[in-house]
Amino acid sequence: MTDQSRRAAVFRDLHRQGGLILPNCWDAASARVIASSGFPAVATTSAGVAWARGGRDGEDLDRAAMMAGIAVIARAINLPLNADVEAGYGPAPADAAQTGRMAWEAGAVGVNFEDADYAEPGALTDIDLQKKRIAALREAAPELVINARTDVYLLGTGEDEEARAEAAITRGRAWLAAGADVVFLPGATDPALVRRLADGIGGPISLMAGPAAPPAKALFEAGACRISTGPFPMRAILDRLKTLSDGLADDWSVMRPAGDGLSKIGAVFG
Amino acid sequence: MTDQSRRAAVFRDLHRQGGLILPNCWDAASARVIASSGFPAVATTSAGVAWARGGRDGEDLDRAAMMAGIAVIARAINLPLNADVEAGYGPAPADAAQTGRMAWEAGAVGVNFEDADYAEPGALTDIDLQKKRIAALREAAPELVINARTDVYLLGTGEDEEARAEAAITRGRAWLAAGADVVFLPGATDPALVRRLADGIGGPISLMAGPAAPPAKALFEAGACRISTGPFPMRAILDRLKTLSDGLADDWSVMRPAGDGLSKIGAVFG
Repeated sequence: MTDQSRRAAVFRDLHRQGGLILPNCWDAASARVIASSGFPAVATTSAGVAWARGGRDGEDLDRAAMMAGIAVIARAINLPLNADVEAGYGPAPADAAQTGRMAWEAGAVGVNFEDADYAEPGALTDIDLQKKRIAALREAAPELVINARTDVYLLGTGEDEEARAEAAITRGRAWLAAGADVVFLPGATDPALVRRLADGIGGPISLMAGPAAPPAKALFEAGACRISTGPFPMRAILDRLKTLSDGLADDWSVMRPAGDGLSKIGAVFG
Repeated sequence: MTDQSRRAAVFRDLHRQGGLILPNCWDAASARVIASSGFPAVATTSAGVAWARGGRDGEDLDRAAMMAGIAVIARAINLPLNADVEAGYGPAPADAAQTGRMAWEAGAVGVNFEDADYAEPGALTDIDLQKKRIAALREAAPELVINARTDVYLLGTGEDEEARAEAAITRGRAWLAAGADVVFLPGATDPALVRRLADGIGGPISLMAGPAAPPAKALFEAGACRISTGPFPMRAILDRLKTLSDGLADDWSVMRPAGDGLSKIGAVFG
């Protein structure tokens, strides 16, 4: 068993244990800082990797550029890494397969995989096609933990809340049947809704939390097994940088660390 | 005249005008945030680019990896970019020349170039050899603004303050004679010392400021024409990330931006 296979098994098992908080990083430095806080695994944010490399979120970086960002992060930490691979960089099942192979080769042991249709902004990929794409991803990378996302809530598809819940449940069940390990429902954070989705999907579900999300405990009790943070940590530290940068011409002390955070990780950054 | 030649001329002229504050970035996102604060040019920090890409400061990233980091930043902003190219990734004048060519090709219009001898930790490169290296860099990239650094103060070489000042002046004069545009004296921030070095060197000098440095005005009045910030902005934001990451398991609100910084740059990060 290779180290990577072992990390994949550990990561899969963390979903069975539940209560998994998975902060999202965007480069080697952020990954190391997050790892130093004691999380058992780390995830990438596609938005963050894109911003760090000069692109925008939503497949503005191509597959090779995103994989380069993922590989740098995987090499920097000795923990299971989940890679956000957006919608797989191409519409066909073969695109998903290629993305899965490359994510594994880059060192990731899990992926987020979207059902947003990048050819038609605001629309979702047809269910049958997305099932084929997930099946192709599973076949190409058998050990990868597939966190199959539906963008029902982020895109606000459908007539009303009822239609969205039904669509999310239908899609979630389909993704699990096609070989996904977990159904990712970013945008859903109300505990009553989470409970309904968990029951309706009848398998592992994961969420994304922003600064105003209900407490992790409430979301886990409502049926989530995993919560990630998306681009919010990076947004918070870019805000700090903007305040620093705006004040720098007048006062060097804006560069003074506010906490003692960095001193705690000292040697990590040589 | 190409856009890059124009940016190089603008950057060279900023040194004649004086009062140049040049914050250091490490990726495309930090470069864009800093640019949004209205600085007329931006610099890279080799430490930061290395940390973001999984390495340590001090030529742990090789030349190609550092240049990849520089190129991403140069593409992300429409301002003159100064690239920190450490000691040029090899001891020979030909190494310096290759580094200069590649920095220009990566889109930089200026470089920091060190006299630390990476083959002998703590030691400085022989003056005659360093002159040849600077001359080779100049010849290879005629338009590049060369900020030739002496590490006398960072390494704490010599017997005492007097010996260090004499060495810094001797080296600074030699670097200008060899074709450098500016002499970079990181570690020197006492205004009286800066005055002595400026007078002794008799040409443009640049400094590095940390959070506790004397006010920019005092350093410019003492004779500096340019002040950069080295790794200090990145250290400050990594400290913020560490505090966030340590608190994340208990409270999502640690991700809430403290300022309104990010909202000011909004669309930059799409």
